[in-house]
Amino acid sequence: MLIVMDKDATSAQIDAVAAKIEALGYVAQPMPGGERTAIGILRNPGPVDPALFLDMPGVSQAIPVSRPYKLVGREMQREDTVISLPGLELGRDRFVVMAGPCAVESETQALAIARMVQAAGAKIFRGGAFKPRTSPYSYQGLAEEGLKILAKVREETGLLVVTEAVDPCSLELVAKYSDIIQIGARNMQNFTLLRLAGQATKPVLLKRGMSATLEEWLMAAEYILSEGNPRVILCERGIRAIGEHARNLLDLATIPVVHKESHLPIIVDPSHAAGRRDLVPPLARAAVAAGCDGLIIEVHHEPEKALSDGAQSLYPNQFAGLMEELQKLRPGGWQ
Amino acid sequence: MLIVMDKDATSAQIDAVAAKIEALGYVAQPMPGGERTAIGILRNPGPVDPALFLDMPGVSQAIPVSRPYKLVGREMQREDTVISLPGLELGRDRFVVMAGPCAVESETQALAIARMVQAAGAKIFRGGAFKPRTSPYSYQGLAEEGLKILAKVREETGLLVVTEAVDPCSLELVAKYSDIIQIGARNMQNFTLLRLAGQATKPVLLKRGMSATLEEWLMAAEYILSEGNPRVILCERGIRAIGEHARNLLDLATIPVVHKESHLPIIVDPSHAAGRRDLVPPLARAAVAAGCDGLIIEVHHEPEKALSDGAQSLYPNQFAGLMEELQKLRPGGWQ
Amino acid sequence: MLIVMDKDATSAQIDAVAAKIEALGYVAQPMPGGERTAIGILRNPGPVDPALFLDMPGVSQAIPVSRPYKLVGREMQREDTVISLPGLELGRDRFVVMAGPCAVESETQALAIARMVQAAGAKIFRGGAFKPRTSPYSYQGLAEEGLKILAKVREETGLLVVTEAVDPCSLELVAKYSDIIQIGARNMQNFTLLRLAGQATKPVLLKRGMSATLEEWLMAAEYILSEGNPRVILCERGIRAIGEHARNLLDLATIPVVHKESHLPIIVDPSHAAGRRDLVPPLARAAVAAGCDGLIIEVHHEPEKALSDGAQSLYPNQFAGLMEELQKLRPGGWQ
Amino acid sequence: MLIVMDKDATSAQIDAVAAKIEALGYVAQPMPGGERTAIGILRNPGPVDPALFLDMPGVSQAIPVSRPYKLVGREMQREDTVISLPGLELGRDRFVVMAGPCAVESETQALAIARMVQAAGAKIFRGGAFKPRTSPYSYQGLAEEGLKILAKVREETGLLVVTEAVDPCSLELVAKYSDIIQIGARNMQNFTLLRLAGQATKPVLLKRGMSATLEEWLMAAEYILSEGNPRVILCERGIRAIGEHARNLLDLATIPVVHKESHLPIIVDPSHAAGRRDLVPPLARAAVAAGCDGLIIEVHHEPEKALSDGAQSLYPNQFAGLMEELQKLRPGGWQ
Repeated sequence: MLIVMDKDATSAQIDAVAAKIEALGYVAQPMPGGERTAIGILRNPGPVDPALFLDMPGVSQAIPVSRPYKLVGREMQREDTVISLPGLELGRDRFVVMAGPCAVESETQALAIARMVQAAGAKIFRGGAFKPRTSPYSYQGLAEEGLKILAKVREETGLLVVTEAVDPCSLELVAKYSDIIQIGARNMQNFTLLRLAGQATKPVLLKRGMSATLEEWLMAAEYILSEGNPRVILCERGIRAIGEHARNLLDLATIPVVHKESHLPIIVDPSHAAGRRDLVPPLARAAVAAGCDGLIIEVHHEPEKALSDGAQSLYPNQFAGLMEELQKLRPGGWQ
Repeated sequence: MLIVMDKDATSAQIDAVAAKIEALGYVAQPMPGGERTAIGILRNPGPVDPALFLDMPGVSQAIPVSRPYKLVGREMQREDTVISLPGLELGRDRFVVMAGPCAVESETQALAIARMVQAAGAKIFRGGAFKPRTSPYSYQGLAEEGLKILAKVREETGLLVVTEAVDPCSLELVAKYSDIIQIGARNMQNFTLLRLAGQATKPVLLKRGMSATLEEWLMAAEYILSEGNPRVILCERGIRAIGEHARNLLDLATIPVVHKESHLPIIVDPSHAAGRRDLVPPLARAAVAAGCDGLIIEVHHEPEKALSDGAQSLYPNQFAGLMEELQKLRPGGWQ
Repeated sequence: MLIVMDKDATSAQIDAVAAKIEALGYVAQPMPGGERTAIGILRNPGPVDPALFLDMPGVSQAIPVSRPYKLVGREMQREDTVISLPGLELGRDRFVVMAGPCAVESETQALAIARMVQAAGAKIFRGGAFKPRTSPYSYQGLAEEGLKILAKVREETGLLVVTEAVDPCSLELVAKYSDIIQIGARNMQNFTLLRLAGQATKPVLLKRGMSATLEEWLMAAEYILSEGNPRVILCERGIRAIGEHARNLLDLATIPVVHKESHLPIIVDPSHAAGRRDLVPPLARAAVAAGCDGLIIEVHHEPEKALSDGAQSLYPNQFAGLMEELQKLRPGGWQ
Repeated sequence: MLIVMDKDATSAQIDAVAAKIEALGYVAQPMPGGERTAIGILRNPGPVDPALFLDMPGVSQAIPVSRPYKLVGREMQREDTVISLPGLELGRDRFVVMAGPCAVESETQALAIARMVQAAGAKIFRGGAFKPRTSPYSYQGLAEEGLKILAKVREETGLLVVTEAVDPCSLELVAKYSDIIQIGARNMQNFTLLRLAGQATKPVLLKRGMSATLEEWLMAAEYILSEGNPRVILCERGIRAIGEHARNLLDLATIPVVHKESHLPIIVDPSHAAGRRDLVPPLARAAVAAGCDGLIIEVHHEPEKALSDGAQSLYPNQFAGLMEELQKLRPGGWQ
């Protein structure tokens, strides 16, 4: 249920509605908008009777919310969310490219790649310090040492950094060192991690799970928002499907549907969808043409020596060429 | 196995290689290229010994073909196939848009829509006369009467027409009235139909099956080519997958992979992938940005009255707006 | 819509209802049951007003049929269909095992295998004469010669035979030589073939399509019944899914759901689901325990020499051992 | 690489091999078997040269392990693992049924259901205290209070208990109160949780992920074993697939394949696969017929009042009837 107030409703009227919601045992979530305030009712186990609110002063409408998600839905917030980051914005008309290696391997490697992707126009550097790997015997990342390298990259280049957290412990560290906290596909329904990310003060990049429906994905974002962190960036990275010509099946229809259902921005990771270098540029172009708010792309200066995912990493000059193509496809709003 | 001849090999030398292949009980498929001729060996149940050919005069190389497809593969023909149609070409750098209703319902309807899509830049009119429907009680199309209406549309407007054949009987009629024979997703592995399409003199639009791998799809095309019809246009239309936000999952990675594996052109059907009107423009833009050779789009002037698939048909003015966007995304090569 | 007549309704009353249905432009399908007659209304494009029938003499109820399938649904026929075949029955409590090679390769091969599977308890011999193959260069079957071998097997052993039809031409031949007409997974939505099978006088074994939903499968059966052939045996053979440990994912939940939704019998093909020999016995046992009405299993006396599907064919002694296990799991009703 | 020692190899010889492995920078994992000892080489980034070990005294063979999993594989341990629990065993020929509600709701509810499932033959009581829910607004479980109720159930009835852990914090509590630690489908690749479960002293029930391949699932188990906990029970619960007649697609082929690839036991959860009560008994029977080592089934005495998953919970009398059927299907080895 969403209680929409009159345009000229007073603070006292808004407070009275919130107080009534709380008195009923639910949680009130006021959402001040450009023109008027709406108040979401959360934690109600079943439908709420609109009549309880419609006769209160200053109340304009009581809209039953049919979607299971509330805070992430358009019904709660009509305007696109714009994610504010130091020196740039993402969402609405602001378009951002994140790029870097799959894993931070050394300061030399990270700085070399960071300077190359920055020269080509990337604004955020990606690189994993905690790597969730299918095998316990695979390279697991540099952990806090990797985070320190990322912080060094930011210091040296001015690029912002994004990196993945995989458990409560790493989340605390990532929130400390990184500008954006990434939650990976395997953890999309790690609800404890989502709640902790919701208590963090940094924006969260939430990847779609391996076989998640759109609703499950938005509900995962809802976990983060329901804990008080409104800065969530969704990231489509393909789902598991039949066929072997690409690693995952990039589902670009999520872009317009997310934009219709939710006010959150959505970016695309063509590298993990492709799984092979030659498919990254066409999928990146397609994602931009479909209207995404940004891209996150793997780039490595020596992919054949990469400790993970080398086969899908672009060479720096390929990345630079791709960036030129993308700027033609989408002339405005580049951050 | 592919026998590649010297650049200056004589006809007699080529004939001798073909004769040897036939003498071994296989089928020889000479493929004259721009610079040199290659001869494919078909119907060999197992590997063929290259030594049998390497010492023949005029033979340059004997290349074992690792892919199960031969005629459709790049190894057999390096240059992109260009499909010649009356007054236009499709493939390589020639880009074509096909548009029209799901089903031909009446001459009035067909002509009205045809004129609208033509004005917006479409060159080929689509419309089903034989409709494969999940239910025996659903509208099944106008059959030959529908084909006559398509012929009338061509006569009145100059647009070419494409329509679906569903069995041997309808194939014969479609080949007679239509400029392009469409084989639908449900019939992608109707091998009898594929063979008959391979014996037709019209180009074939071959849609990808509901859950076909890329290899199965190319092998279906191989059936058509192996019967002597080299003019096949592949059409990606999404595969069945989890999730409910779109009808099928459009797999745009097939575009670069088909272009790498095969010399055949590939177009995209965003309408059947989307299943809902609002997703058609972003998916169409994405397909163009990913490098497809054309699009086939459902348009209806009164979609709410359409006898089938109304929900995914664009209004004519939406189609016109989309065409303008597409021309910006892909400035050259429009037919 | 289903018009249910009173228990003591007269023929004249039944005829009057049918005449009214026809007068409305629909098709009336009378279904005489044990206690009373019901009349289905087919080919109605939309809902029919029950009031049109409720005041007619002898009419008890007018039930709107919510399922898209009618003739195959339980609402139309409450009792299980029993398929009558020469000398045996399938469905309700009669359980039948069909077995034999993937393809009929020669009279010697067919007879050798037939005698082995008969000795182990199979009642119907399977073997393909028309093989739908992914590649045009693969073994395509013996065609009519194979059908003659099947007829010879029946003559020599008394086993009934089942074999696949792939197009109108082969359907006519299969209907002539075989006791059961098989429609394969790739042709489940070959509607022309389904209609022709519906006009045949032999029972039809209808395999589930590669990625067909249960509803699509039942609608395919509806095509056959709507043409007048009520003898359809459904066959679950697994659907395409992720994972590589088996060829297809056998979906045994279809057994209880088909039994709930439809009166048609359902058998299981563990061989095509497994794709490898060692998985066939456990899947066959599981299918029987889940309540299927029969099995169709590939057996070859020399699988390593089989022209197709050798890897999934049981050796005759494995098949005999499996039959003993199955008889313990399901003691009664064996045909 | 697996170093297999001679039958009469001495401890000193075994130690020398282990020391050499460690000297190379890898981890040695001695596995004493019935007849001879094998020593696994773990954490080697690439292939290891067998010649390094073959000339050492007491070494019989050096087997390159082709599977990515080692400790869970048959190559490492030929005999089936038997999971020892207080008063019962699971695996090899010991068959165990676990049953109870989706969530522990109250002591009254838990005890009532526990007594009913115990009377019908269940040996382990299931019930969630920490519920991973798609929505942050859904019932999340009683947490530690639920665990105390489970401990009370064990005390009162003698049943063992199994319950799910969802994060490091709940894992510690579950390991304290419960007899078996369950890792749910959504956490199958929560590698931090897997490592912690590998350090616990209780057996682990590891459910297959929503869209996990068999290899990924076994690799998840490998995480647990590689930390020192050899007592892992795999649990097949269906994967996400197309079709709507059941919630997930139960993949019974995993039973024989797991038994071939791994020494670990595998049980089946028909309740979460079915998603609806009427499908649970046929799927449970099928799982037993396919050879599983146990079942975990949801039972509720008042499913219509259940706080979660009521629609798939059996009534106690249905469960008792099912247990009788299962005992006929699988006469021996019941614990």
